[in-house]
Amino acid sequence: MQTSLDCLPCFMRQALSAARIATDSPALQQQILHRAARLLAEFDLGASPPENAVALYRMIAETSGRPDPYRELKEESTRIALDLLPLARARVDEAGDPLLAAIKFAIAGNIIDYGAHQDFDARRAIDNCLAQPLAINDYDQFRQDAARAASILYLADNCGEIVFDGLLIEQLGAEKITVAVKERPIINDALVADARACGLDRRSSVISNGTDCPGTPLADCAGEFLDRFHGADLIISKGQGNFESLSESDAPIYFLLTVKCPVVAEHVGALAGDAAPRRAAMGDLILMKKARPFPKTSP
Amino acid sequence: MQTSLDCLPCFMRQALSAARIATDSPALQQQILHRAARLLAEFDLGASPPENAVALYRMIAETSGRPDPYRELKEESTRIALDLLPLARARVDEAGDPLLAAIKFAIAGNIIDYGAHQDFDARRAIDNCLAQPLAINDYDQFRQDAARAASILYLADNCGEIVFDGLLIEQLGAEKITVAVKERPIINDALVADARACGLDRRSSVISNGTDCPGTPLADCAGEFLDRFHGADLIISKGQGNFESLSESDAPIYFLLTVKCPVVAEHVGALAGDAAPRRAAMGDLILMKKARPFPKTSP
Repeated sequence: MQTSLDCLPCFMRQALSAARIATDSPALQQQILHRAARLLAEFDLGASPPENAVALYRMIAETSGRPDPYRELKEESTRIALDLLPLARARVDEAGDPLLAAIKFAIAGNIIDYGAHQDFDARRAIDNCLAQPLAINDYDQFRQDAARAASILYLADNCGEIVFDGLLIEQLGAEKITVAVKERPIINDALVADARACGLDRRSSVISNGTDCPGTPLADCAGEFLDRFHGADLIISKGQGNFESLSESDAPIYFLLTVKCPVVAEHVGALAGDAAPRRAAMGDLILMKKARPFPKTSP
Repeated sequence: MQTSLDCLPCFMRQALSAARIATDSPALQQQILHRAARLLAEFDLGASPPENAVALYRMIAETSGRPDPYRELKEESTRIALDLLPLARARVDEAGDPLLAAIKFAIAGNIIDYGAHQDFDARRAIDNCLAQPLAINDYDQFRQDAARAASILYLADNCGEIVFDGLLIEQLGAEKITVAVKERPIINDALVADARACGLDRRSSVISNGTDCPGTPLADCAGEFLDRFHGADLIISKGQGNFESLSESDAPIYFLLTVKCPVVAEHVGALAGDAAPRRAAMGDLILMKKARPFPKTSP
């Protein structure tokens, strides 16, 4: 998905939000905003939004002198999510279809995204989530494809969210899953240490994609990651950032995300296919297979 | 009022909105956004938002080759307002306090502002308006000061809105009023021709302030305007743009505006004084006298 003109005001809004998280100094905040504007003037609209975001957040880290300004917020969201986990696990266990319930929690965990919004009430959002339908729902096919897949690559998104990813990973069979996170800090995206803090490394492999991009830009990813990416029977892509950078990939991907911006909403709708035209709106929960058929995978 | 860091994402949003109004060419829209970003990097945060907006909108006019991209929208809002005028005038005539009703219409007319928002339902907004209280309400003093004033300078804001300003001008006594508009096109701000199209020149003087600023930047205003500004017994300042550029003036100003952004909401609240701390929120209707006492004026 290319960067839209609509992304540019949003990048400025994100820069302001990140500047205020990174530093209390009005002078540094102003410097960050002015530098952000200069970067925006050079952004390549042919690249995806997460690819353009890399330069923006690197600049903010450098200008503020804080390589990981979201560290406290990440720790807080992990803490909140771990607090909520027993409640969510109980809901999964008592559900008529535990896999579907786990999917919904994994998608609802995506609302814990400080990059897109500042305020959230995670517990209420999760309660509402189970009642909310999937606006695009390729669940039946997902269930079959996931059962058939011998290896699944799970592209994680944010801290907090990855705690709930654990519920879905358990349902799918943790041993056949590789969880991929980011190599270096970027917004509130999960790193290897965060995945370990949630215990995801106990039964699954945890690797990084080699980048500090809030998505999965294949051209910049590490060799080990790319081997897993191209070798996986099935790929689960969580969140908007991974969707934005992989929406044109031919890999066997299912996108699980909450729609948080109108540009992604439009792109999701466009990708959902002509056969049954589906629309996406802000706040929608999405479980979407790319229209292109999956290659036959191992049993 | 100085430009806040919060204004910078909003300027990008405005640039995108204006670019799409000015041209259908994606290439030109992109050029406008990139140039807007470069301008933002140089903005003087010590200046008011309307002063910074001048360079932005001049660039958009130049890049798109359209010196007055909002012309059609201005004509449309004038047409909509003239359609609604008989309804509004009847409401004023039947009101227990016609001056107060006219004030509310003049403030509600301010919602017709394509610079800040794209969509509006003017008729419903006007219906709602009369029922809405003034969140900051210096009406009693305004009524006395306006009756006492021999000369009133009325700083108009947008097209459409100026049609409703006519109702307030009638209540105040059109002969003692000078209506000031903008000299050259800027967003949807009213020009001399627009004021004449609404008939405001029939009983009042109509002048321009000499600028193409969406506000009243005194340092850039024309001599004739400044004579009226400094000689007026009372000044009525309509809308956010005039408020933003005059909020620190010592002139005998009443600010009439609808609050449309959180930065203005905060500044309005700060100016409203300590004695009776008042807050302002998005959508509030404001009739506010500067805390500084007015000089004694002619009877």
